[in-house]
Amino acid sequence: MSLVVMKFGGTSVGSIEKIKNVAKRVAKKKDEGHDVIVTVSAMAGETDRLINLIKEIDPKYDPREYDMVVSTGEQVSIGLLAQALKTMGYDAVSFTGFQIGMITDGAHSKARIRKITGERLRQALKEGKICVVAGFQGIFPETGDITTLGRGGSDTTAVAIAAAMKANVCEIYTDVDGVYTADPRIVKNAKKLDKISYEEMLELASLGAKVLQSRSVEFGMKYGVDIMVLSSFEEKPGTLVTKEDKDMEKVIVSGVTCDKNQAKITITEVPDRPGIAAEIFEELANHNINVDMIVQNVSTQGKTDISFTVAQTDLLRAHELCKEIAKKIEASNVLADENIAKVSIVGVGMKSHAGVAAKMFKTLAENNINIQMISTSEIKTSCVIDEKFTELAVRVLHDKFVREGDDVS
Amino acid sequence: MSLVVMKFGGTSVGSIEKIKNVAKRVAKKKDEGHDVIVTVSAMAGETDRLINLIKEIDPKYDPREYDMVVSTGEQVSIGLLAQALKTMGYDAVSFTGFQIGMITDGAHSKARIRKITGERLRQALKEGKICVVAGFQGIFPETGDITTLGRGGSDTTAVAIAAAMKANVCEIYTDVDGVYTADPRIVKNAKKLDKISYEEMLELASLGAKVLQSRSVEFGMKYGVDIMVLSSFEEKPGTLVTKEDKDMEKVIVSGVTCDKNQAKITITEVPDRPGIAAEIFEELANHNINVDMIVQNVSTQGKTDISFTVAQTDLLRAHELCKEIAKKIEASNVLADENIAKVSIVGVGMKSHAGVAAKMFKTLAENNINIQMISTSEIKTSCVIDEKFTELAVRVLHDKFVREGDDVS
Repeated sequence: MSLVVMKFGGTSVGSIEKIKNVAKRVAKKKDEGHDVIVTVSAMAGETDRLINLIKEIDPKYDPREYDMVVSTGEQVSIGLLAQALKTMGYDAVSFTGFQIGMITDGAHSKARIRKITGERLRQALKEGKICVVAGFQGIFPETGDITTLGRGGSDTTAVAIAAAMKANVCEIYTDVDGVYTADPRIVKNAKKLDKISYEEMLELASLGAKVLQSRSVEFGMKYGVDIMVLSSFEEKPGTLVTKEDKDMEKVIVSGVTCDKNQAKITITEVPDRPGIAAEIFEELANHNINVDMIVQNVSTQGKTDISFTVAQTDLLRAHELCKEIAKKIEASNVLADENIAKVSIVGVGMKSHAGVAAKMFKTLAENNINIQMISTSEIKTSCVIDEKFTELAVRVLHDKFVREGDDVS
Repeated sequence: MSLVVMKFGGTSVGSIEKIKNVAKRVAKKKDEGHDVIVTVSAMAGETDRLINLIKEIDPKYDPREYDMVVSTGEQVSIGLLAQALKTMGYDAVSFTGFQIGMITDGAHSKARIRKITGERLRQALKEGKICVVAGFQGIFPETGDITTLGRGGSDTTAVAIAAAMKANVCEIYTDVDGVYTADPRIVKNAKKLDKISYEEMLELASLGAKVLQSRSVEFGMKYGVDIMVLSSFEEKPGTLVTKEDKDMEKVIVSGVTCDKNQAKITITEVPDRPGIAAEIFEELANHNINVDMIVQNVSTQGKTDISFTVAQTDLLRAHELCKEIAKKIEASNVLADENIAKVSIVGVGMKSHAGVAAKMFKTLAENNINIQMISTSEIKTSCVIDEKFTELAVRVLHDKFVREGDDVS
């Protein structure tokens, strides 16, 4: 008998009607002969409602009390889904994070899973029960306090349970039906991938493809859990996120993504002395500003330009801060530009194929798209470009790399 | 240092504004130098919203899943109140039922408290913290499942905590400011009682004075917890529910109450043979129909009339059922009357004063109110009368017993 972990997000359980539909999907899986554990999020809108309540009391709320309030959203969902399954004649039982021994650290509102003891899950499965588990929440054993994993944590809950219980697969049901080679709203002929490696999925997740939460993919990779991304609303094949294999390497580029929530800051004529970059980026980190790409130009006459990207929401704060820093380190000027976007190509095949980055630059140049910054990893190449070219860039890169396929010489 | 347990109901925490007001009341108590534990209910309307969600899935819901869903209401309240106290600069911490070791039996949706381990409460109090505890919920240790105590269970939670933690007093804040000698909407000169015994309070609670939940009074009586009933909205003296003392015995009648939610059924010409009453009332119990007063007339010629009262909501079902029973036992007829009410006088002084019941009957007679049924206990006398005389009866009894006072010869 195989064990399947299924996960349904907030929109999938957004109403009583939808909860009944989820119950049907779960029941079908059970009927097929599988042992089943289901993880669910709070009903759509509920988490926001709860966050607003505590914010109304204090916008700078205490994370422990935040967790106490917000974790109730999932608790309601599991009770309702278990009830829906029981009403259909299935033996189901709901569990909160503490009941299944979902042990986390004590970092309230963004806790990390340490381990899952899972006794009650094992017992309930042995009795033939369908287990319905609250996503997003755990318990910090040193205090007995309820913790939450941070937004999107239900994906992570599901994958962690699959790892701990040695499930055959973790199925994540979402409002898309899989992982595509590009955003289908931009690229009409984007294709759904049958399979993708954890590494590629991580790059795609952090690059703005909102299918799976990054931490859940990291968890899957660490414990070798096969993750299947499927549609909540239609029954059709999805995308399997799994270990890299020979097949995947044949495909050089698995996906093309873009991220418009980026802004660029350039500090000009920075005195080129050891420790100066550290000084700048430590100061930004101290103010909780996340820096993504960093480019430092070659130094001329003891001066250098340093450019980097931040999230658009951080731009104002980062700009002000950099002006102060520039004064202190005697740089000449600070330029800010929010009309930029990052386009990226991702693929494990890039590791074994030379010339992929060059081909990307050439493709953009042929379409008169100027490249402002470049950043690369083993399986990814990203370029910062003028925002107005975003869709064009994604389309031409998708045409060149995904449709033409393996023609890199 | 004294320990005070405070309890606020759903209307008292019905909005963020009201929660902030409760926080002020709690903070003031702390400022006065007391150790403080606060118990709260779910925000007004929230419990009904949650019950409706699960009922929408299945009106015959599973009580375990019901508890899972419904117990979240109090969890939200405690997080919000603890946050409000913290925002005011007070060190506060919220606890669910399982976190304070509120051990109950496994009777989901109507669980009874077995004991409170309370380690975390003791620790938090030692650290000078205000403890904010979820009312209405506990945990069944054999399974680790969340239980609820049934509606109104937050009163019981508060009194049980006061007993377990040896608090000096348990203060119940409600939307009335104490216990009155009669309903002030009926009797203009009803007086607020400074003190009342547990036994009297129990009779009043079960007779329709909705100030305190009966089980909480039973708990207070069992463990000798002083319960103070106070207004949530105004700061003025309330009513102390405590052990019977000499003072109380001097007052013969503490209160006059009425209950209009009553209906009377009479089965006429029942064959008078052993076991016939058992047969009737067992059948009613099997159908979950609660019978209150029972009167059996003297038998004439081997036949007797049996009358009893039920809640008005049960009248239709009870009437149908009695018609079947009457056929089976060969009684002649079944009469139903919902235009009745029960008026009662309650007081520990009745134990040591003869003639109180007779004086009640005489007072009603003097006002041309016919008595249909009579039932008495050590500290209570109840009469069933025509519903239209209810307010009149309460007023004349209040005038006679409460205003005139101790003039029973």
